[in-house]
Amino acid sequence: MLKCAVVGATGYTGIELVKILLRHPGAEAAALVTRRKESIPIRQLIPTLPRAMDLVVRNYTFSEIKRLAEAVFLCLPHTEAMEAARTFYEAGKVVIDLSADLRLRDEKTYEKWYGLAHRQKGLLKKAVYGLPEFYRQKIRKADLIANPGCYPTVSILALLPLVRRKLIDPASMIIDAKSGVSGAGKKVSPGTQFCAVDENFYAYKVGRHQHTPEIEQCLSEAARSKIHVTFTPHLLPLERGILATVYVRRKKKVSASAVREAFVRHYEAEPFVRLKPEGSFPSLKDVQGTNYCDIGIWVDPKTDRVIVIAAIDNLLKGAAGQAVQNLNIRFGFPEEEGLRVW
Amino acid sequence: MLKCAVVGATGYTGIELVKILLRHPGAEAAALVTRRKESIPIRQLIPTLPRAMDLVVRNYTFSEIKRLAEAVFLCLPHTEAMEAARTFYEAGKVVIDLSADLRLRDEKTYEKWYGLAHRQKGLLKKAVYGLPEFYRQKIRKADLIANPGCYPTVSILALLPLVRRKLIDPASMIIDAKSGVSGAGKKVSPGTQFCAVDENFYAYKVGRHQHTPEIEQCLSEAARSKIHVTFTPHLLPLERGILATVYVRRKKKVSASAVREAFVRHYEAEPFVRLKPEGSFPSLKDVQGTNYCDIGIWVDPKTDRVIVIAAIDNLLKGAAGQAVQNLNIRFGFPEEEGLRVW
Amino acid sequence: MLKCAVVGATGYTGIELVKILLRHPGAEAAALVTRRKESIPIRQLIPTLPRAMDLVVRNYTFSEIKRLAEAVFLCLPHTEAMEAARTFYEAGKVVIDLSADLRLRDEKTYEKWYGLAHRQKGLLKKAVYGLPEFYRQKIRKADLIANPGCYPTVSILALLPLVRRKLIDPASMIIDAKSGVSGAGKKVSPGTQFCAVDENFYAYKVGRHQHTPEIEQCLSEAARSKIHVTFTPHLLPLERGILATVYVRRKKKVSASAVREAFVRHYEAEPFVRLKPEGSFPSLKDVQGTNYCDIGIWVDPKTDRVIVIAAIDNLLKGAAGQAVQNLNIRFGFPEEEGLRVW
Amino acid sequence: MLKCAVVGATGYTGIELVKILLRHPGAEAAALVTRRKESIPIRQLIPTLPRAMDLVVRNYTFSEIKRLAEAVFLCLPHTEAMEAARTFYEAGKVVIDLSADLRLRDEKTYEKWYGLAHRQKGLLKKAVYGLPEFYRQKIRKADLIANPGCYPTVSILALLPLVRRKLIDPASMIIDAKSGVSGAGKKVSPGTQFCAVDENFYAYKVGRHQHTPEIEQCLSEAARSKIHVTFTPHLLPLERGILATVYVRRKKKVSASAVREAFVRHYEAEPFVRLKPEGSFPSLKDVQGTNYCDIGIWVDPKTDRVIVIAAIDNLLKGAAGQAVQNLNIRFGFPEEEGLRVW
Repeated sequence: MLKCAVVGATGYTGIELVKILLRHPGAEAAALVTRRKESIPIRQLIPTLPRAMDLVVRNYTFSEIKRLAEAVFLCLPHTEAMEAARTFYEAGKVVIDLSADLRLRDEKTYEKWYGLAHRQKGLLKKAVYGLPEFYRQKIRKADLIANPGCYPTVSILALLPLVRRKLIDPASMIIDAKSGVSGAGKKVSPGTQFCAVDENFYAYKVGRHQHTPEIEQCLSEAARSKIHVTFTPHLLPLERGILATVYVRRKKKVSASAVREAFVRHYEAEPFVRLKPEGSFPSLKDVQGTNYCDIGIWVDPKTDRVIVIAAIDNLLKGAAGQAVQNLNIRFGFPEEEGLRVW
Repeated sequence: MLKCAVVGATGYTGIELVKILLRHPGAEAAALVTRRKESIPIRQLIPTLPRAMDLVVRNYTFSEIKRLAEAVFLCLPHTEAMEAARTFYEAGKVVIDLSADLRLRDEKTYEKWYGLAHRQKGLLKKAVYGLPEFYRQKIRKADLIANPGCYPTVSILALLPLVRRKLIDPASMIIDAKSGVSGAGKKVSPGTQFCAVDENFYAYKVGRHQHTPEIEQCLSEAARSKIHVTFTPHLLPLERGILATVYVRRKKKVSASAVREAFVRHYEAEPFVRLKPEGSFPSLKDVQGTNYCDIGIWVDPKTDRVIVIAAIDNLLKGAAGQAVQNLNIRFGFPEEEGLRVW
Repeated sequence: MLKCAVVGATGYTGIELVKILLRHPGAEAAALVTRRKESIPIRQLIPTLPRAMDLVVRNYTFSEIKRLAEAVFLCLPHTEAMEAARTFYEAGKVVIDLSADLRLRDEKTYEKWYGLAHRQKGLLKKAVYGLPEFYRQKIRKADLIANPGCYPTVSILALLPLVRRKLIDPASMIIDAKSGVSGAGKKVSPGTQFCAVDENFYAYKVGRHQHTPEIEQCLSEAARSKIHVTFTPHLLPLERGILATVYVRRKKKVSASAVREAFVRHYEAEPFVRLKPEGSFPSLKDVQGTNYCDIGIWVDPKTDRVIVIAAIDNLLKGAAGQAVQNLNIRFGFPEEEGLRVW
Repeated sequence: MLKCAVVGATGYTGIELVKILLRHPGAEAAALVTRRKESIPIRQLIPTLPRAMDLVVRNYTFSEIKRLAEAVFLCLPHTEAMEAARTFYEAGKVVIDLSADLRLRDEKTYEKWYGLAHRQKGLLKKAVYGLPEFYRQKIRKADLIANPGCYPTVSILALLPLVRRKLIDPASMIIDAKSGVSGAGKKVSPGTQFCAVDENFYAYKVGRHQHTPEIEQCLSEAARSKIHVTFTPHLLPLERGILATVYVRRKKKVSASAVREAFVRHYEAEPFVRLKPEGSFPSLKDVQGTNYCDIGIWVDPKTDRVIVIAAIDNLLKGAAGQAVQNLNIRFGFPEEEGLRVW
């Protein structure tokens, strides 16, 4: 059994991670860690768990964690994860960091979008971006995995086949994304109060969401050229799921079937990407509670525009599920282990 | 008192219309009409009404309506309103048709998008498209007003200043719209059942929503050239409101301040369009229950893209509220009469 | 115009109060008060307001308020309102306190349920409990009105006719109440986060909700004997409204029609209590946005049990609406002034 | 592998049943049956299923089902299940009927509450009521199991220990129950439209819900005397879950600890009933997606009233989960097989 630690086990992402590990036949939740003083029975955090599951989330020290675990998931807030990442990485652990701290290669980009200087610049080049559909080979050998953000996961998966095959105008990418409230995390704030969200809908951080450079970095690598995207996140009055409606312009002479073919080829061997049949598009209900990314495609002959609609569960394929997918790849488990749920 | 009839007073739109007429100091709900056999006390349809309001919705004949009313609102389903429109128009009434039957000038476009031949082609050229922010002068004298659809209202208002002043690439218009469930009307269907909508979100009629030609017709007139738009509607798990996120590319040398200035100028005298201050964007809560269209603007210097976000209450500015605004214009009432609510 | 101050104008209740005053023909919002340093334009707090409404909420001093207003609404948190109440009362103002500070006659009961000693005991005997359906005569002359809590309003109105006419076993009263989230106020807390409430439902403060003694005090006065009730509040995943399902046992020989007759008689002259016809029961949609309390009654011959179901909007009849109803009574306005909305 | 048929696999309950069977190590979904003409791939009904799951729901004839399956789950509407039950029962199958057709022993009670004569009276005495916490011994040998209704399951479990031990006044039982919308089934109706349910709450079928006699029958058997209950169902604006708040009066001299002790004893060996610690009460989130019934207890010394709050997932412990629990008991599988989920 692979011994795993979850550092930050009380947040939404940590809880999902624990739920997956508890059904993973090859991995074990060896240390569930919180910074709070008091220990918390896991069944208090996850009341749906059977009675027999009597794990406790504790305030383990870093030394204890090093002793107890071989793989370490970091579910800490942005700007607070980097030191922990370094500690466990230098101790020879496999680190899967679910924060944004190691996702951007360029420290200046980090500083610009996260508002403070990166304190572990040395790690940035070492981290592998944990999007299996693009970096699976590197993930197999990575000891430091930067688990992608929820918006970047769904946005990149919607665009990757078109960008790789150069079927679209690289200046035309628009991502209109809509997320459930759990994406904002468990931290109490006026904006996530029930009465502020219920029956409401709005765009936020228009033109300045910190996931923009992460999307651009990955697509630029895929395109082998600098790419700028327009990315607009919105808040949905529901708990889980992101749906992104992506608009791009196909290049001249690229047929509708070539567009579809690109997706089929790119994703046919992927365990967690599902293409909808022609004329059909994903809904959040299709993916909630799963690690799937569902994708539907439409080409408008009048405007040469391609619409790609992609949906994920933000806490699973957008966070904890993808983290375990990365763990499976890194440690040689079947990639769907622990993630076959319905 | 101007005597008004509401034909189809039991649907969502009819009910909102009755609510407005009941507080309009110059208009009177003289005939509330249903096709059902049995009469229905209005307080059964609108339980929040004070006890004193004892109107009854009845199965009035067309002759009775002609006798009782001077202005006739038609809240009938698409493809069923046109004959009624003709009857009352020919009887010398002012007709405000809230269906889609008279909105498209070209009968072939109607046939293509609504799936059946238009049976009152003669009316199509006579009807004035009831969007006050563009056609106010014509509405003042119109006896046949085609009240705009909900999606077209919010989409056109988001684009009109940019299109009129030719600040944007006319081939670049993308409208990503999200609507509450009341937009689907009161008719019972599997897709609007609570368990199908709750906690769900998805795009529908991708590339084939019947409001597309209505948007294109109005914007083409504004641009004095043929315009195609990409329009994608989505269903929100909430009752009321539409928010449209609109993406266009500005022409070279058009500054961000020129973009904002266009909106300020175009709408400064408009009673029901409100611009958000720079950096601020509308949310559905701002407009629910009102006749306002709120608009926020952002220009991205990196991509030359302009994002316009507009929000309305689909049943008010998107239907019944705009219908009364048109009535007010046509009959010389102050334009906000009956529509000042909070 | 009667000059009114709203002290605590930024919370849910304060906002509703301002909305009502802005449409009240005889009253004027002369001072909207916040304890925050910065002034806030009212349209920022209530975005649905027309542009012309340019009031500002300010950090007025008590002296300024005394100079500006004749009637003072206190929308302050429990335990913080009593000093303000005294100040304005002693300055000769009519004070309508929406907090719980003046509702209980007995200081020991207050201390027991609110956890701290009352600091203005002298006021307790002077305050009139502002439930018009029971204390209208006293309210007419009151200068210190303790506006009832939301749960007590709906619970007492459901029981008052039965208690007054002694038709029921006084030991049999059970109130199972369900409230929307706005009842918890605007203060940010983990329990009112969207993800905690959405798709959830539960009872809270079972057997120990602070509104229990308020219900018992009023019913005891109505019964002229000491009454204990069982009161269980629950949290509904919606914004506004309380529905209470009340169970009591009728006395022997009390017929079903005598039960119904008691309600008809007791409430026939009441402007804001509406009885549902036999076999019909209220829903929250019937009363949201209004000052009504709707009541439905059922008598089970098998068990001699009477079920009374009552519904109100917790922010209106349960708070701000009732406060204005009290103002109207006190100052001789028609009782429905400002409260006729739909 | 035990071969199972699900007759009526396209409704909410049928779908949950299929989901459970697909993870049950000892049972197999050998025939998924619909009355619709066209076959439906199961992944269309349950989009979250992994791609490998390629079962198809078909219009199997009864002869085919008899050949294919050893155990038959009936998920048919009330009044339509009884003939199918007889057919499969007489063919020697183990029948688990999730409809209400076989739950009431007395045909006259059925006729009174379901509005039509029972057509298979002979089956009524043969069927075992499938509530494991009361009838486990009989279920072990039953070939005809009447799976309990959702409201009866949660109501009876809340009362059983108190009734069995005669700790309460049998005339004092009041059940105030609140259910999510999925309890109404998948059939399209005006009352389950999104706009009718969203932000709304109300009681329905007050004093006349058809689950009343089912609750009374089981509790009467437990008490060995005729019991009448007051049962009021309400509709919650959420998808899944029932919470029942149950009020009873303890007998004189029954201590609070005796009340709690009754629950501890009665349920300590039960795999699917969980008692909350003192002062703690269940919420729907604790049980959604599980087969648990969570129970919290409070005794009010002032009124001698006992409040029991119980929560289940109406589609699992209230339907499909309990059906599989019964299957497990009947066929000797571990009782939690297929039902350990989180």
